Amino acid sequence: MARVMRYSVLFGLTLCLACNQNKPSIEVNKVIFPEKEVIFEGLNRPWSIAFLSEDEALVTEKNGDLVRIDLLKQTKNRIKGFPNDLTDSIGTIHVGDNSGIYEVLLHPDFGQNQTIYFSYAAKKPGKGKTTKFVSAKFKNDSLSDITPILIAEPFTEINYHYGGGMAIGEDGKLYLTVGERLFWEHDEPEIPIAQDVTDPRGKIHRFNLDGSIPEDNPKLGPNSIPSIYAIGIRNTQGIALQPNTNRIWFTEHGTIQGDELNILKAGGNYGWPNVTTGKLRSKDYKPPKLDRAELTNPTWFWHHTVAPTGLCFYTGSEFPYWKNNLFIPGLSRGSLWRFQLEGDTIKSVEELFLDSRVRSRKVAQSPEGKLYLLTDLENGQLVRIIPKSISNN
Amino acid sequence: MARVMRYSVLFGLTLCLACNQNKPSIEVNKVIFPEKEVIFEGLNRPWSIAFLSEDEALVTEKNGDLVRIDLLKQTKNRIKGFPNDLTDSIGTIHVGDNSGIYEVLLHPDFGQNQTIYFSYAAKKPGKGKTTKFVSAKFKNDSLSDITPILIAEPFTEINYHYGGGMAIGEDGKLYLTVGERLFWEHDEPEIPIAQDVTDPRGKIHRFNLDGSIPEDNPKLGPNSIPSIYAIGIRNTQGIALQPNTNRIWFTEHGTIQGDELNILKAGGNYGWPNVTTGKLRSKDYKPPKLDRAELTNPTWFWHHTVAPTGLCFYTGSEFPYWKNNLFIPGLSRGSLWRFQLEGDTIKSVEELFLDSRVRSRKVAQSPEGKLYLLTDLENGQLVRIIPKSISNN
Repeated sequence: MARVMRYSVLFGLTLCLACNQNKPSIEVNKVIFPEKEVIFEGLNRPWSIAFLSEDEALVTEKNGDLVRIDLLKQTKNRIKGFPNDLTDSIGTIHVGDNSGIYEVLLHPDFGQNQTIYFSYAAKKPGKGKTTKFVSAKFKNDSLSDITPILIAEPFTEINYHYGGGMAIGEDGKLYLTVGERLFWEHDEPEIPIAQDVTDPRGKIHRFNLDGSIPEDNPKLGPNSIPSIYAIGIRNTQGIALQPNTNRIWFTEHGTIQGDELNILKAGGNYGWPNVTTGKLRSKDYKPPKLDRAELTNPTWFWHHTVAPTGLCFYTGSEFPYWKNNLFIPGLSRGSLWRFQLEGDTIKSVEELFLDSRVRSRKVAQSPEGKLYLLTDLENGQLVRIIPKSISNN
Repeated sequence: MARVMRYSVLFGLTLCLACNQNKPSIEVNKVIFPEKEVIFEGLNRPWSIAFLSEDEALVTEKNGDLVRIDLLKQTKNRIKGFPNDLTDSIGTIHVGDNSGIYEVLLHPDFGQNQTIYFSYAAKKPGKGKTTKFVSAKFKNDSLSDITPILIAEPFTEINYHYGGGMAIGEDGKLYLTVGERLFWEHDEPEIPIAQDVTDPRGKIHRFNLDGSIPEDNPKLGPNSIPSIYAIGIRNTQGIALQPNTNRIWFTEHGTIQGDELNILKAGGNYGWPNVTTGKLRSKDYKPPKLDRAELTNPTWFWHHTVAPTGLCFYTGSEFPYWKNNLFIPGLSRGSLWRFQLEGDTIKSVEELFLDSRVRSRKVAQSPEGKLYLLTDLENGQLVRIIPKSISNN
């Protein structure tokens, strides 16, 4: 009897492992914690990343180039043929200069058409700079067929708040963010820039993937720019599709506090600069009154400045507890925020890695579901957030 | 062969369950989330709880009585013989009146000696009120042998910031918190109350369990009160022993921001009112300068007011991911904060239950490791935080 039991237990253990292979299980006394691991270095203030495969990606360096990195070979190749109207102020004015290269995104049919989208600060000699969004063919580390989608005129000499975020919605449309391009509110015209539907700045725009304008964009009044989808937005760099609800979320930089997280609504007015959860930088500026009933409130705002940027919904399996959670990096405090959601209700908010803060621009996920972070440093890094299973007894 | 395999799998599954009983496992595609469940109601602003068994507890009602509750029978019995110098201002002055009954704690040998400790706002006719800590025998829902441990004189007519927190250290000593009892800083004497080692207010005190003073308390200078263990503390209501490090942590109420989390150090000076992470309420008050090198910095501070109170280290097994985490409730925003720690390093901070905020005074754990919350309401509740296993596919 004893011998039979011994064999049974052995057999049972083996089969336990076998069932684990089909339905992996973790022991209650082992828990998974996140750890950072530097995967790639030497990126000049990386802004965004688009994975070409599990180990290859296009990366935009805000103060450098559009590059292709190979995580296995540890190589970085500069992509040839980048538009030559890229502003030459990059990194030369001062540290706070927002000019540079911003988002990079693959067309949903990239495998067939080799089309990518990217955004950058474009210059016009004698006029200044503005945010520009283009599509291009990407092949053999070169760009061709560069086609403008949006040039957010006017060009100005101000180096701030370009926006530059891009996302593709579940509707197959391209959503672009343009900042209002001011530093001081007392520079606002009578109708504040972000409230003016005849001005492309301080807005989110919606395009078809071929660069044409969808017929079902919201109608925002006489002379309104037809690509405008939402208004009253100071400066949004992060925009992303929530997979399980198909909503689009975006972060917004405030001035003094006022950093917000919003859900995109067709024709929505997010209030800037008339209404904000923070404080205006120009103490004497009195914006015109807006009917608050017509405004869309933020879904979340911070009580202190965090400078939230490139957000990402996590759908991987390495962190089961984090499935469908929203991750938002912050520039000013080097934070990484995790939002646990139920649909579009925020259940909890966690600030992670408090003992290893690093100024970060973007959270991204690889095709197989690995979670990454881009650090906004001159020697910028691609950091992987790895699951570490530790005993918790 | 097919038949053998079928039996094997069946057998394996059975044994899987068998091993689960010894070493419980959870599937990766099931994750545990916290949910609130109201276990008991009708407590008049409950402040603290001391479990007598898994289903019975002593509860202090700030604006009511010391009571015994039975979670199974759903009964609440008023404890007889409470000291009759309990201030009669409770709840009658205004909502912000801090007077009341505070902490309740069992002696480590309660089973043998039936000794409990508790704290409250005591009055002296014509003089005012102050924080008082006593021990007593608790038997048959009655108190006897009530013995004062600390009466934090002077008695004053101010209704704020009594402190009242108590914890027993790993050294078997009793740690008591006394607030500085001011509302405005311009009422401070030349040596601010919390900096004055001849004044018991604005301090943490250390006693033997019999109420005598330990010989190894820090020496804090001429005429210092010998029970004082740390100084410069505005108002601490929450103090708790961290099981795996044996450190004592305490929360501190700031004025405008300045809410802090500290680790207790013998002879430590936590800076109030000379140095704070918040802003002073009296704009024109200039505290004397302190040598910052002699101050103990907070381990954490919030950038907005949360009014942190009765903290608790979780050692239960229902939430494996939370083992040894620190939980802190907040009064002002109805928050529940979770601190993930590695020793005394804070790794991450999560604000939980954002869609069900409730003003809470205390987090506590039952003998078997269930996690509870006391809500600071006139119909105050004991809320259990239950683990809900949900599919996360």
